[in-house]
Amino acid sequence: MRLLTAALLCLPVLAAQAETPSTLLSPELKAQAASLQAALATDDTAYHLVESLTTEVGARVAGSEADARAVAWAEKHFKQLGFDKVTLEPVRFPVWRRGDIRISVLGDSPQSLHAIALGWSKSTPEAGLSAEVVAFDDLDALSAASPEQLQGKIAYVSARMEKRRNGGDYGRRVAARSSGAEIAASKGAVALLIRSIGTDSDRLPHTGMGIWLGGIKPGTPASDRAMVLSNGERVALTAVPAAALSNPDADQLSRLLKLQPKLKLHYQLAGQYVGEYTSHNVVGEITGSTKPEEIIVVGGHLDSWDVGTGAIDDGAGVAITAAAVAAIKKQGLRPARTLRVVAFANEEQGVWGGKAYARAHAAELANHVGAAESDFGAGRIYRIDAGVPAKDWPLVQEIQAALDPLNIELGGQDAGGGADLSGMRDAGVPMFELLQDGTDYFDLHHTDNDTLDKIDPAALRQNVQAYATFLWLLGNAPQRVQTNFVPTPTP
Amino acid sequence: MRLLTAALLCLPVLAAQAETPSTLLSPELKAQAASLQAALATDDTAYHLVESLTTEVGARVAGSEADARAVAWAEKHFKQLGFDKVTLEPVRFPVWRRGDIRISVLGDSPQSLHAIALGWSKSTPEAGLSAEVVAFDDLDALSAASPEQLQGKIAYVSARMEKRRNGGDYGRRVAARSSGAEIAASKGAVALLIRSIGTDSDRLPHTGMGIWLGGIKPGTPASDRAMVLSNGERVALTAVPAAALSNPDADQLSRLLKLQPKLKLHYQLAGQYVGEYTSHNVVGEITGSTKPEEIIVVGGHLDSWDVGTGAIDDGAGVAITAAAVAAIKKQGLRPARTLRVVAFANEEQGVWGGKAYARAHAAELANHVGAAESDFGAGRIYRIDAGVPAKDWPLVQEIQAALDPLNIELGGQDAGGGADLSGMRDAGVPMFELLQDGTDYFDLHHTDNDTLDKIDPAALRQNVQAYATFLWLLGNAPQRVQTNFVPTPTP
Ligand SMILES: [Zn+2]
Ligand SMILES: [Zn+2]
Ligand SMILES: [Zn+2]
Ligand SMILES: [Zn+2]
Repeated sequence: MRLLTAALLCLPVLAAQAETPSTLLSPELKAQAASLQAALATDDTAYHLVESLTTEVGARVAGSEADARAVAWAEKHFKQLGFDKVTLEPVRFPVWRRGDIRISVLGDSPQSLHAIALGWSKSTPEAGLSAEVVAFDDLDALSAASPEQLQGKIAYVSARMEKRRNGGDYGRRVAARSSGAEIAASKGAVALLIRSIGTDSDRLPHTGMGIWLGGIKPGTPASDRAMVLSNGERVALTAVPAAALSNPDADQLSRLLKLQPKLKLHYQLAGQYVGEYTSHNVVGEITGSTKPEEIIVVGGHLDSWDVGTGAIDDGAGVAITAAAVAAIKKQGLRPARTLRVVAFANEEQGVWGGKAYARAHAAELANHVGAAESDFGAGRIYRIDAGVPAKDWPLVQEIQAALDPLNIELGGQDAGGGADLSGMRDAGVPMFELLQDGTDYFDLHHTDNDTLDKIDPAALRQNVQAYATFLWLLGNAPQRVQTNFVPTPTP
Repeated sequence: MRLLTAALLCLPVLAAQAETPSTLLSPELKAQAASLQAALATDDTAYHLVESLTTEVGARVAGSEADARAVAWAEKHFKQLGFDKVTLEPVRFPVWRRGDIRISVLGDSPQSLHAIALGWSKSTPEAGLSAEVVAFDDLDALSAASPEQLQGKIAYVSARMEKRRNGGDYGRRVAARSSGAEIAASKGAVALLIRSIGTDSDRLPHTGMGIWLGGIKPGTPASDRAMVLSNGERVALTAVPAAALSNPDADQLSRLLKLQPKLKLHYQLAGQYVGEYTSHNVVGEITGSTKPEEIIVVGGHLDSWDVGTGAIDDGAGVAITAAAVAAIKKQGLRPARTLRVVAFANEEQGVWGGKAYARAHAAELANHVGAAESDFGAGRIYRIDAGVPAKDWPLVQEIQAALDPLNIELGGQDAGGGADLSGMRDAGVPMFELLQDGTDYFDLHHTDNDTLDKIDPAALRQNVQAYATFLWLLGNAPQRVQTNFVPTPTP
């Protein structure tokens, strides 16, 4: 009864909202947005881009020979897309290289487990190490453990990530990956093993950073673990070797531990710091006609992990945003403001490209009037969020109305933007998010399985339609929007 | 109109069939079958068996140290299941061991591909080989190729297997795996590469025999490729190194070949014959009360490939059939005929256990009155087939009527039985098939992904209910059935 009443009350409100006359965006702008959508309904430019990138370049981990091929690929394809300007901006960062891994069960049930080293893991001794496993339900349980429990042992965190459309469980679980080694080491453990931060049941473990590279304190003395870069920054390997098991292997280990609580593993992996490297952010733009100094940035990151071919993370994001910007010019339209697409270098291992962009463009960030990153796969967009104050919300509502035919709802004002945009966000650039259905994203994320066949061309087209619509309307809106983001003061 | 008429005509026929009074199986037998089904509706014995086997033994490739652990496991668990007799019967066979594999794309798009050696592949030179790839749509196209096309090249068969409930496309596609190397070698190719015989889109290639071990002619002279066993039999490695790509990697290679028709691969794998080994068929039985000399055999194979933990291939089959036989005794029932469950050794690499069983029991095969193997995963049973003549069909109909509550249809008379039963079938033992839904079977078959989490405990219970019903009714039927199988005469 209560539900029914609510539903009856709601309907007129929704109808009234939908009928609010649009006053900010001209009928002509909206007609142009609709034309863009119609033209892009059958345009597979983005799919061809991600197909080309993942096939011809393949995996492109930061600092590898494929990193340079990826930059050359982006420069060539951005030029072919007809951007007014294509520039390469240097991004310098430290490089870690993965070696072999072998984790196996000792004792009465000898067998090998499928595991992958976490990014920036330190090596075990060359012959590996053998130690008992102590299991924890989650990172909180590991944090609460006493050093007596863990001294000389392998700490194992068995928590499983749950599947959600918005990937909402990633935030709760990923700390086991990024902080687990540090916590395990502080209690005397000799290694960390986690269940993959992933939602699939494939025997393909998920990698990802085992340490937050930006988290090394400036004063940290150099050691075999902590390196001082040429610019004075510190980076460090994980405090103990750190690896993730595939979900089926984590299930297996948990079952074995029930049967054999004193179970020992042989644990052997290699990973090392190999020096510094200079890659590039690849920047393409369409110059604005009447307000060229006002810039809207979209993009994704060009690098991938060394597993998979980086189709959904984040070839799709680069392809969607590049195709959307290019489509506007191709349709004979020119926006008032400058539209810029950035293929960011090395997001995966510390957001080096995003930080370099914010540094290189510090002087013009005050004229960056909006930014959105596509870095959540290739699923359909279902919602738009905007980190703007209430006074700017009517414009967001009008943009959403134009996205409504694509089945995109109006979201909220809590838009943090993608990882590569954090420098811009902190500098006051208004953030937008076109939220993608990520139900399957963490099935594939950071695994061998991140390949082209996982992308639905129709969903990709809807993404391009949405970005083109968003860019055309924000690029021509009469007003600039402001940010509602309040940076946390540094202590 | 035509369709409607057919439907109208059909209905009364079907109804009449269903109402045919049962005359062969007594109401008491059928009530006991119904009681068995009821008791087994909540009995997870089979799941616990396959959980234990896949967890504590894990992968158990024939001739490995795990082979012996699997035999010990089966002996122990068959005894615990309460069988009247548990015996180990020796099975001697040759052993092949897999080494490392590394297949990578050379040239402008360097990248590594996920591949696995086919069983009994010969090694490449230790440093590998580098050669151009020549692609063929399917094995027929390879067979039709001229030696000029293939001399010194890598033959690549790109055909993709389609998904069917009955796995029906396997037969059409698997010849690329089992005969491709021989055909490629005959045309001067230096290696074979195939798309995995599998229906998934995971980056986990499917292994399986690259040669039909039984197909080596007795007169073949011994060589570095063809070995003479202690019993005089011949076995051979593949004529050229042979490997399978995962489906996403096969897609990738096909795309690359379109862009770069002269593409070269570096291809390196190791595989070798390492000698002979004696494993065991593990045989458990409930002795018949009034006709103990008449034997019904069910079973599965105990070995697996060296990837996965052999949950669906074929831990499930061993568990289903063992649990079904055991359940009859556990329910306080004793069949007129002897019910025997066999966990066959080394099915995967040449049906050695099945052949050894037929040899060891040659004298009593005339008294084997029926056999059925479970070796198609852990999906629900949807149909019963029986390789019996028309005079025995009414009994099959009555058995199906008892299976009907489990949603199992009446099938046909074309039942060849499982691979391990072929020796029995050739000797005139009547074959039965309880057909499982294999829609997902070839997603997992012979890959790392064949693990416990892929088994639905409810579907496994339905399998046990079906086997127990079948065994109870055939074990007590008033009549013996005959085979309808006519062996092909040896030329
Ligand atoms: Zn990403
Ligand atoms: Zn990522
Ligand atoms: Zn099998
Ligand atoms: Zn098999």
